[in-house]
Amino acid sequence: MFIGIEVGGTKVVMAAGTGPNDLTELVRFPTETPEATSAAIVRQVKQYLALYPTIRGIGVASFGPIQVDPAHPEFGVIYETPKLHWRGFNIVQLLKAHFPDIPVALDTDVNGAAIGEAEWGGGRGLDTFAYVTVGTGIGAGLYVNGKPVHGLLHPEAGHMLIRREPGRDPFPGMCPFHGDCLEGLASGPSIEARTGQRGEHLPDDHDVWLLIGDYLAQLYVNMAMIAAPQRILIGGGVGLKPEVIARSRAEFFRLVGGYLRALKQPESLQAFIQPAQLGDRAGVLGAVGLAVRASPLTKATQLEAQ
Amino acid sequence: MFIGIEVGGTKVVMAAGTGPNDLTELVRFPTETPEATSAAIVRQVKQYLALYPTIRGIGVASFGPIQVDPAHPEFGVIYETPKLHWRGFNIVQLLKAHFPDIPVALDTDVNGAAIGEAEWGGGRGLDTFAYVTVGTGIGAGLYVNGKPVHGLLHPEAGHMLIRREPGRDPFPGMCPFHGDCLEGLASGPSIEARTGQRGEHLPDDHDVWLLIGDYLAQLYVNMAMIAAPQRILIGGGVGLKPEVIARSRAEFFRLVGGYLRALKQPESLQAFIQPAQLGDRAGVLGAVGLAVRASPLTKATQLEAQ
Repeated sequence: MFIGIEVGGTKVVMAAGTGPNDLTELVRFPTETPEATSAAIVRQVKQYLALYPTIRGIGVASFGPIQVDPAHPEFGVIYETPKLHWRGFNIVQLLKAHFPDIPVALDTDVNGAAIGEAEWGGGRGLDTFAYVTVGTGIGAGLYVNGKPVHGLLHPEAGHMLIRREPGRDPFPGMCPFHGDCLEGLASGPSIEARTGQRGEHLPDDHDVWLLIGDYLAQLYVNMAMIAAPQRILIGGGVGLKPEVIARSRAEFFRLVGGYLRALKQPESLQAFIQPAQLGDRAGVLGAVGLAVRASPLTKATQLEAQ
Repeated sequence: MFIGIEVGGTKVVMAAGTGPNDLTELVRFPTETPEATSAAIVRQVKQYLALYPTIRGIGVASFGPIQVDPAHPEFGVIYETPKLHWRGFNIVQLLKAHFPDIPVALDTDVNGAAIGEAEWGGGRGLDTFAYVTVGTGIGAGLYVNGKPVHGLLHPEAGHMLIRREPGRDPFPGMCPFHGDCLEGLASGPSIEARTGQRGEHLPDDHDVWLLIGDYLAQLYVNMAMIAAPQRILIGGGVGLKPEVIARSRAEFFRLVGGYLRALKQPESLQAFIQPAQLGDRAGVLGAVGLAVRASPLTKATQLEAQ
């Protein structure tokens, strides 16, 4: 058994298991101060350890930016998040301090979700795909040849530059770093800032959903041009809204202008841009997947299989 | 020995060798009709075969879009290029027809250059980097964990969407597919279309170089956000112009706004955005690298080394 911990910007989700078929019920609590949240995480890990004596590892899929390189001295440290009291917090150190004998694997929340989709969801059998979540923030993981891309730190696709037409959308954007980057224009809070209402209270035919779909299409186009994923899997409350998905497919098709051979038929967009398959378990299953992959037992099995 | 063939949009470059230290002098001829160019390629391959009896393979790094998946029935076929008479041409078939006993490896020109830089140039030791060329067209290769990313077909970063301020740049762009995509706004021909003169005849302090540098900075920002390369290596006459590189570094720094921790110091941009190191041999060395990597002999050596 492995423990999965998804540390999201608004809530923490935990479960134990080895995959979707034996996953325990999800345990959720809000992401509050690091102190309160840490205490809740540690308490829940202790419960799993009491219930399952064979816990082999803990996987953490966390919001970022976060240092995910195990060789880096700051491994586990959260960097320039707008959640100010979380800056400098080290989730790996916390777990190591309380559970020194259990291996801890770490990646970003979106890379975790990408691993979950690769193992058990919409990324199975693909060389290259992206996982995009659009909710309170916008994040994306890029999965290439069997693992998430880390590179300089990890991708931050929410902060991509996109085109805004001030005549159509006078909202200047609300990213504290970049103003009208993608996240500043298309995240959940931007919808409330524009309309005065939270997205869940707006009618499905509100114009703002077309605007958000058009902005997300620009993300999908630039991803397709820069990294050529075979599929883009979507998560998050805003991203999953059917009106947003439908519009982003149509706008992607219009923008790409027949240039990408594999996407020349509008129908091909149904598969290219689609909801992630693990639903609300994607993040925590990804965290479990991280722990499974990091386990020496798993590596031994994989080597035998080769 | 291996033969490298770089098939570019304006010229073909060929050489033989196993790497930069034993590469023969470069042979160049213009890219004309497929018939004339094919004949010249075949003639040159025959010369190498006569000179070096131990030719183990041919590597081709070609302009695209081109089918680079060896398992695809259209492997080697050039797709929607603006060079109309090249559409449907199959470079692999040509070589197989004339030299049935020699293995042929194929990738795009930019992926080839990325392989060359990974083996012998500015990509050595990096997990993730990008190679960008800006000249007649704009292309980019993305190299992740030991190989170029292919995905859906291969990246086409020249056709990324970027921001144009019509007040500053009224030029509507000249991409036949997308108008003012990056290639439509920042390739060599766009400079001539705006100024009436070819770039090489313009003074170094012409405003157009600042404009091009700013557009390329947007490419680099979006690459950094989507794929987080550890380095971006630049090629091509426009891309390599010192005024363009300097401006694109400064604009990248301004746009990212301190968000990317590894690039918080302006000096870090010197290493992050830098000229490719193999110069005018990058393409053909990449083609040689492709053949070397595809060779069963090389694979045997690599396995022994493990």
